[in-house]
Amino acid sequence: MTHLVTVLGGDGIGPEVTDAAVRVCQAVTTADQITWTNASFGGNTFLEEGSAFPDDTQAACKESSAVLLGAVGLGETLPPGAKRPELGLLELRGALGTFANIRPVKPFPSLFDMSPIRPELLEEVDILFVRELTGGIYFGEKTRTATTASDLCVYTEGEIERIVTMATEFSRDRRKKLTSVDKANVLETSRLWREVTSRTAKAVCPEVELEHLLVDAMAMYLLKRPADFDVIVTENMFGDILTDEASMLCGSLGMLPSASIGEGTGLYEPIHGSAPDIAGQGIANPCGTILSAAMMLRMSLGQPDVANAIEAAVEATIDAKVLTPDLGGKATTKEMTDAIIKRLG
Amino acid sequence: MTHLVTVLGGDGIGPEVTDAAVRVCQAVTTADQITWTNASFGGNTFLEEGSAFPDDTQAACKESSAVLLGAVGLGETLPPGAKRPELGLLELRGALGTFANIRPVKPFPSLFDMSPIRPELLEEVDILFVRELTGGIYFGEKTRTATTASDLCVYTEGEIERIVTMATEFSRDRRKKLTSVDKANVLETSRLWREVTSRTAKAVCPEVELEHLLVDAMAMYLLKRPADFDVIVTENMFGDILTDEASMLCGSLGMLPSASIGEGTGLYEPIHGSAPDIAGQGIANPCGTILSAAMMLRMSLGQPDVANAIEAAVEATIDAKVLTPDLGGKATTKEMTDAIIKRLG
Ligand SMILES: CC(C)[C@H](C(=O)O)[C@@H](O)C(=O)O
Ligand SMILES: CC(C)[C@H](C(=O)O)[C@@H](O)C(=O)O
Repeated sequence: MTHLVTVLGGDGIGPEVTDAAVRVCQAVTTADQITWTNASFGGNTFLEEGSAFPDDTQAACKESSAVLLGAVGLGETLPPGAKRPELGLLELRGALGTFANIRPVKPFPSLFDMSPIRPELLEEVDILFVRELTGGIYFGEKTRTATTASDLCVYTEGEIERIVTMATEFSRDRRKKLTSVDKANVLETSRLWREVTSRTAKAVCPEVELEHLLVDAMAMYLLKRPADFDVIVTENMFGDILTDEASMLCGSLGMLPSASIGEGTGLYEPIHGSAPDIAGQGIANPCGTILSAAMMLRMSLGQPDVANAIEAAVEATIDAKVLTPDLGGKATTKEMTDAIIKRLG
Repeated sequence: MTHLVTVLGGDGIGPEVTDAAVRVCQAVTTADQITWTNASFGGNTFLEEGSAFPDDTQAACKESSAVLLGAVGLGETLPPGAKRPELGLLELRGALGTFANIRPVKPFPSLFDMSPIRPELLEEVDILFVRELTGGIYFGEKTRTATTASDLCVYTEGEIERIVTMATEFSRDRRKKLTSVDKANVLETSRLWREVTSRTAKAVCPEVELEHLLVDAMAMYLLKRPADFDVIVTENMFGDILTDEASMLCGSLGMLPSASIGEGTGLYEPIHGSAPDIAGQGIANPCGTILSAAMMLRMSLGQPDVANAIEAAVEATIDAKVLTPDLGGKATTKEMTDAIIKRLG
């Protein structure tokens, strides 16, 4: 069966890193297995077509097995109040029903020195973040007058159940520890979150050990004892903040992949931004996107062995010190990508 | 003029650390200057009197120039759904109108080794957090049914203006840099926050350089380049998370003071919790509360010189390695407090 993958290069360095990732995938898969198509998305698309997420892109994404996204954002050049490319991203997530954002945080030993955290704390770190992605304050009703604004945070039992079910299943296949993060001492949504999480985790897999932590405490423990966590599940806004904080354990943002999965088509993207300052120079770090493509092969395209091979090749390339400037090296995007392809075996 | 200070020891180690702080203050002020009274507050008070913040405590606090608080919380022993001691804290803040929570983050060089962050990143760190404390999602309307919950985040222009005015004034007297943190690419309250902040900071002091950062980016930069920040102003929930994250720059939570100020009586408390596990053993670190008392002397009691003397004595004591167990030493609360008093000169 041929899988269709839609590639949304996006803005800035986006198209450079998606090109690199597609080259890596094409080196280990055939045209029979995957058909790749490009579609327009993001800030430039907004300027050209008046929408960051046009209808034909939407249709292409929905028909695909997976979407590979580069990055969106033009810096500060958009008119204030414009429907910004970030909203393209929220619409994309909403359209695909990708209610779970999955971010592995496992620092590479040869990059420990790039992290602001002491290397001895990084040694056993292997965290999987599961962030709720289509609910909460991101999608609740908003109001605005000249002098007042509001955002409503809503969660339903069903929204919590499905994300916690997924997180519990991930823990079951890992170290069987699940940490749920909320602010149950203040928020009503967090109290519902805690109740539903306790009951769901137990029902899905009683062997998984569940702990509840408050978000402020989690922001500390993530730095103080990062090796203690296995799977961390949390709501949309807390997940946004904590996953970016956790990215610092890995040194460079450029290395980190993510998967957004849920009802159908999966969405795969590096966690870094569009970096307009280095766009077009051919020096962007392609690893975050290449590792996102590996997650795509594993989670949406049924090719776990190919995914493993790509991940091993990225690690071997890092260990061999073929590094882009953000990692302290001098390799171009193309050189680093070639070095990864060479190591695919 | 005699100032009245109400002391709320609270739960766990709370009374041990407020006792220590009062002893330090009494060593450098006279009974003519400050009258100290104790009042009941927190989890134990809730269990004994049915309210964490009884009326007579409320009256005493409102009459005082300042309130010195230890810590609240009994661990997991309260019945679920009970009106918890945290709510006592929110009520206390609401009753006193303390709309600004001020947290200095300036790591002590002799404690650099206790931080999970690399020491070379800590050298020039000197941040003042100004967190909005009586608005936003903490105080908005909450709803709950069997299957749905909601929390409303509201901000008004006036609430933003007063906190930003205060933050701008702090920056003016420091390094003239103000960083405002929001999530303006997603939240309507953040868009209002950003507009009002831009206009207010400019009106209050045009020489202060203002930058806006998104909360997720801030969670990274706080670790990657903490020395770049001077005053950071943000809304209630983001402030809760970011200040706790920032506390890790200082190594031990036990060292960190806070001030909550606003319409009248100021509230001063260490940022650590009630630590039920070590309560009653006489080994709690008193420094967070002693430094909070110093902030109180400076900000509510008009005694900046005494405040400076206490801060210098704490630093000298740390440098002399008279340390409680949380700091890697063997001193008791009493020994460390005595050592600080001895250095008050
Ligand atoms: C761009 C923004 C809307 C987005 C989010 O907050 O979800 C980003 O920060 C992310 O984490 O993917
Ligand atoms: C106890 C809790 C309600 C409180 C808060 O979130 O404000 C605490 O975390 C703090 O930061 O003082």
